[in-house]
Amino acid sequence: MKREKNFGISGERLKYGLVGGGPGSFIAAVHRTGIDFTRAADLVAGCFSRDSVKNRTAALEFGISNDRTYSTFDEMAKREAARDDGIDFAVIATPNNTHYAASRAFLENDINVSCDKPLCFTVEEALELASLARDKGLLFMVTYAYTGYPLIHHARELVRSGQLGAIRVVMCEYPQGWLSDRTEDSGNLQAKWREDPAQAGIAGCVGDIGTHVENLAHTVTGLEIESLSATLATFVEGRTLEDNAMITVRYKGGAVGHYWPSQVAIGHENSLAIRVYGSEASIEWEQEKPNVMRMMKKGQPPMILTRGGPGLGRAAARWTRIHAGHPEGAFEAWANIYEAFCNSLKRHIKGQPSDDLEYFPTVIDGMRGVKFIHDCVKSSKADSAWVNGASQYCV
Amino acid sequence: MKREKNFGISGERLKYGLVGGGPGSFIAAVHRTGIDFTRAADLVAGCFSRDSVKNRTAALEFGISNDRTYSTFDEMAKREAARDDGIDFAVIATPNNTHYAASRAFLENDINVSCDKPLCFTVEEALELASLARDKGLLFMVTYAYTGYPLIHHARELVRSGQLGAIRVVMCEYPQGWLSDRTEDSGNLQAKWREDPAQAGIAGCVGDIGTHVENLAHTVTGLEIESLSATLATFVEGRTLEDNAMITVRYKGGAVGHYWPSQVAIGHENSLAIRVYGSEASIEWEQEKPNVMRMMKKGQPPMILTRGGPGLGRAAARWTRIHAGHPEGAFEAWANIYEAFCNSLKRHIKGQPSDDLEYFPTVIDGMRGVKFIHDCVKSSKADSAWVNGASQYCV
Amino acid sequence: MKREKNFGISGERLKYGLVGGGPGSFIAAVHRTGIDFTRAADLVAGCFSRDSVKNRTAALEFGISNDRTYSTFDEMAKREAARDDGIDFAVIATPNNTHYAASRAFLENDINVSCDKPLCFTVEEALELASLARDKGLLFMVTYAYTGYPLIHHARELVRSGQLGAIRVVMCEYPQGWLSDRTEDSGNLQAKWREDPAQAGIAGCVGDIGTHVENLAHTVTGLEIESLSATLATFVEGRTLEDNAMITVRYKGGAVGHYWPSQVAIGHENSLAIRVYGSEASIEWEQEKPNVMRMMKKGQPPMILTRGGPGLGRAAARWTRIHAGHPEGAFEAWANIYEAFCNSLKRHIKGQPSDDLEYFPTVIDGMRGVKFIHDCVKSSKADSAWVNGASQYCV
Amino acid sequence: MKREKNFGISGERLKYGLVGGGPGSFIAAVHRTGIDFTRAADLVAGCFSRDSVKNRTAALEFGISNDRTYSTFDEMAKREAARDDGIDFAVIATPNNTHYAASRAFLENDINVSCDKPLCFTVEEALELASLARDKGLLFMVTYAYTGYPLIHHARELVRSGQLGAIRVVMCEYPQGWLSDRTEDSGNLQAKWREDPAQAGIAGCVGDIGTHVENLAHTVTGLEIESLSATLATFVEGRTLEDNAMITVRYKGGAVGHYWPSQVAIGHENSLAIRVYGSEASIEWEQEKPNVMRMMKKGQPPMILTRGGPGLGRAAARWTRIHAGHPEGAFEAWANIYEAFCNSLKRHIKGQPSDDLEYFPTVIDGMRGVKFIHDCVKSSKADSAWVNGASQYCV
Repeated sequence: MKREKNFGISGERLKYGLVGGGPGSFIAAVHRTGIDFTRAADLVAGCFSRDSVKNRTAALEFGISNDRTYSTFDEMAKREAARDDGIDFAVIATPNNTHYAASRAFLENDINVSCDKPLCFTVEEALELASLARDKGLLFMVTYAYTGYPLIHHARELVRSGQLGAIRVVMCEYPQGWLSDRTEDSGNLQAKWREDPAQAGIAGCVGDIGTHVENLAHTVTGLEIESLSATLATFVEGRTLEDNAMITVRYKGGAVGHYWPSQVAIGHENSLAIRVYGSEASIEWEQEKPNVMRMMKKGQPPMILTRGGPGLGRAAARWTRIHAGHPEGAFEAWANIYEAFCNSLKRHIKGQPSDDLEYFPTVIDGMRGVKFIHDCVKSSKADSAWVNGASQYCV
Repeated sequence: MKREKNFGISGERLKYGLVGGGPGSFIAAVHRTGIDFTRAADLVAGCFSRDSVKNRTAALEFGISNDRTYSTFDEMAKREAARDDGIDFAVIATPNNTHYAASRAFLENDINVSCDKPLCFTVEEALELASLARDKGLLFMVTYAYTGYPLIHHARELVRSGQLGAIRVVMCEYPQGWLSDRTEDSGNLQAKWREDPAQAGIAGCVGDIGTHVENLAHTVTGLEIESLSATLATFVEGRTLEDNAMITVRYKGGAVGHYWPSQVAIGHENSLAIRVYGSEASIEWEQEKPNVMRMMKKGQPPMILTRGGPGLGRAAARWTRIHAGHPEGAFEAWANIYEAFCNSLKRHIKGQPSDDLEYFPTVIDGMRGVKFIHDCVKSSKADSAWVNGASQYCV
Repeated sequence: MKREKNFGISGERLKYGLVGGGPGSFIAAVHRTGIDFTRAADLVAGCFSRDSVKNRTAALEFGISNDRTYSTFDEMAKREAARDDGIDFAVIATPNNTHYAASRAFLENDINVSCDKPLCFTVEEALELASLARDKGLLFMVTYAYTGYPLIHHARELVRSGQLGAIRVVMCEYPQGWLSDRTEDSGNLQAKWREDPAQAGIAGCVGDIGTHVENLAHTVTGLEIESLSATLATFVEGRTLEDNAMITVRYKGGAVGHYWPSQVAIGHENSLAIRVYGSEASIEWEQEKPNVMRMMKKGQPPMILTRGGPGLGRAAARWTRIHAGHPEGAFEAWANIYEAFCNSLKRHIKGQPSDDLEYFPTVIDGMRGVKFIHDCVKSSKADSAWVNGASQYCV
Repeated sequence: MKREKNFGISGERLKYGLVGGGPGSFIAAVHRTGIDFTRAADLVAGCFSRDSVKNRTAALEFGISNDRTYSTFDEMAKREAARDDGIDFAVIATPNNTHYAASRAFLENDINVSCDKPLCFTVEEALELASLARDKGLLFMVTYAYTGYPLIHHARELVRSGQLGAIRVVMCEYPQGWLSDRTEDSGNLQAKWREDPAQAGIAGCVGDIGTHVENLAHTVTGLEIESLSATLATFVEGRTLEDNAMITVRYKGGAVGHYWPSQVAIGHENSLAIRVYGSEASIEWEQEKPNVMRMMKKGQPPMILTRGGPGLGRAAARWTRIHAGHPEGAFEAWANIYEAFCNSLKRHIKGQPSDDLEYFPTVIDGMRGVKFIHDCVKSSKADSAWVNGASQYCV
């Protein structure tokens, strides 16, 4: 029973295991760096690759003992659950097609989960995972890490406190340019799996980065999608999945929005950006310049808010790690969601409530993302007909 | 017969008359400044206001003699046509609801026309005006002045010469914030007529600024709209016409686009902006910073092109009025379309072809704009159904 | 006696003559465009070139009659002064070496003057011209046109009204890159005369653009230079005059400043920029983006002020020609100083005071500029010793 | 003998001790985060505060055993040196006035050092430390962490490879606004010690941030200061040390530069910025936007280089931790200098050379900084006379 565990001092560390992260992997290293930043958890177990050589190589690199280096996540889940000093949570950083099975394996063995996005392939799977986590009383993070930036928490605070007034228009986009050619044919593994439905799921661009758009817009505004109309397109010849999407959104309450994820937008790296227009004020923020936010109040000159600078509130201060003027970046955003998750988990294990629960994205966000992907594909296939929106389902 | 006229020296000036421009008007003064800039035409006649006092006041201010100050545009058209020294062209700078009748009056009297946008209220009117101009052999400019910026001509040249490759995605927007409240109730006349269907036509935001979006996107890319799906919304209570629109566009040939005109986007002044993504390169341009353009070639660092700076072509050079580093602005854009119009008209009168014909927007652009407005309204009323696009009609 | 003249209606136009402006000249065309913009004065006479063919060619182009096309400015000054309908002011737009003689010729003949910068070559000449204008009761503008931008007037208003508090630091620079090579050897006439002491005077970069830095800083802050320390350098081999200068400034009252004019700063066009730091607030402005100004109040987020936007005062409003969001540029800045000059001149001729007198740069600014050039050269030659500053002399 | 130590596998970690870092300290936490990022060293010993309660509190927080928690750095140096498992290096993160004594203590006990900047108070002290390190064969880093940004390494590579041509002008500045009032009176400890000569040394602003300017300019350009002329000023009444400095620099070889550190520049946070102008190209970089650099080649449009993006070389790639488009920040810059230091130290201990030696700032940089501070103060006291520059001394 994990719950009996007692963290005597604030400094005691959690233990986690990693699924994925073998040589050549990218995102697992980002998870690890984010966690290390928090100083809240240690990597003690893993199933790093299906290839046994790669698996052991990674274990050696990470300093994991042989008896906690597993061939399958199932084995890992069972054996870690059986240990007195078993892992407190599992990090799942594999390609999309194993997210569901791996998450389920750990949940079924009473182990908390942090899974990369998208959560899984179908809404049914998502519901199953969300229900399982709820029923077992486990924490489940889905790592939409862009929401970890302090100014995103400030934006959300502005919306909630009514400083923007009634939200009218949301413009959110995530243009990238790296798939403007057949990058997947040039030996780029990151490109290759993204274009393979068996690994990536039913959507390409929408599944990979469109869900970040949906999650960011929802996190900041709290708006629920009433219906959406999507136009998916594949521009690069021979590609199976879409590489660009235009998505018009009607929110409950009357606001409208537009989401544009694209992987053929030459000149863009990770230009995730959000603009929210309310009846009293507006805000603009770009992921590539995460330490500044533009705020425009009705009838006043636009203001430049900076992380750590004047005019910010409690939420941004909570997640600021260094003085204003010293830029924070993506690793710090990852650290923030992991710190919120680990803090909450430490308290959860001791049966205590946590103020940090709202600062990391959960399985519900993951489920909303999966629903969004399916709705976009469904709408696009129906000549961009309006379909019910991403936020209809909840556990 | 105007055509017999001979401009003996390059410096000879055209003569023009003005409809509108009485005390308190805004846009007529912009037309006049643009024309003055060119030194190509003199104001010699006018029908400045229906109010006879205002009409004579304006005439006095502009130095127009009593016998060329007219009570109606019909009278002006007939009497100027009858003079040996009659006007070469009429400038129509009245509210939208007189554009059609005034334009027709001058065309019927063999007088060339420069009319503000939108051209008129219905596609049938637009067709009639376009046909009349064609049959009479008259020049007809519709003053989409944003296309007069030198870097827009450069953007068009880049597209035509294939430097962007095949166009894939067009993102074009025109957010303003000035109507985020009931500005029309506060005595702002500019706001008031725009929200009155009798004066503004069937659309608000789309008619006023959405047509600029459509015109800019078409001018730069040359793409024809195959179909569009529009979602119009009115956010300010009590307002009759829409103040925000989301418009998804499918172009002939497979490109897609999104247009966003808004008048409730707090913090924006005239943030008309276009981004064009091709298979080889992309460009970004903002009307409020018209002297710079970002160009992003595949696999290369983004470049900042400046008006007058290195890397530009013939078209931008043709319309640059001052050295790089000395900013040009909106008046120069107006001057450019008027210079292209006046140059072409001088040659047209002498029966000569003109290279400048492609550098000013014509009645065909005006007609396309009217069609666009109607298509947007039609689509929005049909739950954002796809409707045939703006470029289906041509004379 | 010019003073007897009566402008019966506000619209009556002044008459001016132009010295310089023959084929191939640059700055004279800018003067003319600025004046045309104001609709306050007509070009009626000129001495456009020493080359008689060029002189007559320009006269033909400008529509100037033969009897008012003069071979020398002396002839022009005398004969125009003798006419009942003689010119109200002369515009001197020749290379630097004729500024003094031409200005004196017109002043001596009781004709008001608008002269390009720098005013002349020596402080004694400058004093003579300033005294002459004062004694004759004539208006004398020196066209430091960058001070005509509306936001510069706003900046000055902020300083005067104490909104910046006590000024502490002024950073002002004008980097250009066009002389980073021996441009003067490639047939570029603009480069050639600038590097010839006989035509340009004792300084290169400091005389050409350093004076703009000095004038802008003085106009905005009102600070008087107590002493300065200059380090002039010539980087391009074979060049006679300096192409870069570092100038440290101590102002009366304790503030300090740094001026950096350069013509070897590759990548810059006309990047004149000023930053003023006070005890209560700071401002930043760049000539190439003249429609925005950054204002930073102590303890508050930075604000972006826009020409025509919220938060501006009377002075900026006075000189704004078009709504916010429609960019104004360099020609409008020229128009503004000419409008202030012409308005003042009309009233001056009628013996009336003018509120616009403070909105154009005068012979006193010109004299300060000449003193500044000499002080910089003197300091640099004395191993950057402190020398008395530019504002010691006044008439 | 440390040198006999053998790191059997690449992953073996170094051990380090920390001087400073008790409750409330700022910079020590930054050192620790930077080191943790590298996964190359563990904190095992410390002397965290002179206050024994604070010392033990910190030890508890950091998980340091009692026997390795020391009351003085002298004791720490001696006892760690005596252990078989003693620390490999000491991190000195105390106020400036203990840097010298603490550094010496560790060096004398054969322990490598990483010391915060400025290195010490006098040039003689600096020379002594540098000589000691050299004679003992120890590595000594001085943590000018801003040089750890990947684009700074790229800038240096551009200079070295001749892509900028001959360097002509260097503009470097570090404006801050946080001391524009008597912040030191409001209980801000960071402000207080900086304004106390006993703790901060002979200079305020120049010692605190001016040395960063000097170090950044030297790191990027490699230029040696021949002489400098400084004007120090104190604007806030009652303050002992200067809060603003204008420093003109002549480099060996003929280039000139200007350095502006300020702590009264309202609106600035940590706006360290450098611009380098060469005969072939120029570059611009700002610390607050560390992932982009502007490069301007002669006769070409300016380019925007991004960390991880196209057009970069080996050095930037070496220090890039995450894909382009995911911003890196200040912690990563700290991690980079610590990774270079730790990598070099591991190899150094084994008697091997290291390619990373050039990627961290050393005691020589620290010495140059101390010399720079003294030269600035000396020049300013002598009415800004030229004094020999910072790079005259070397070991």
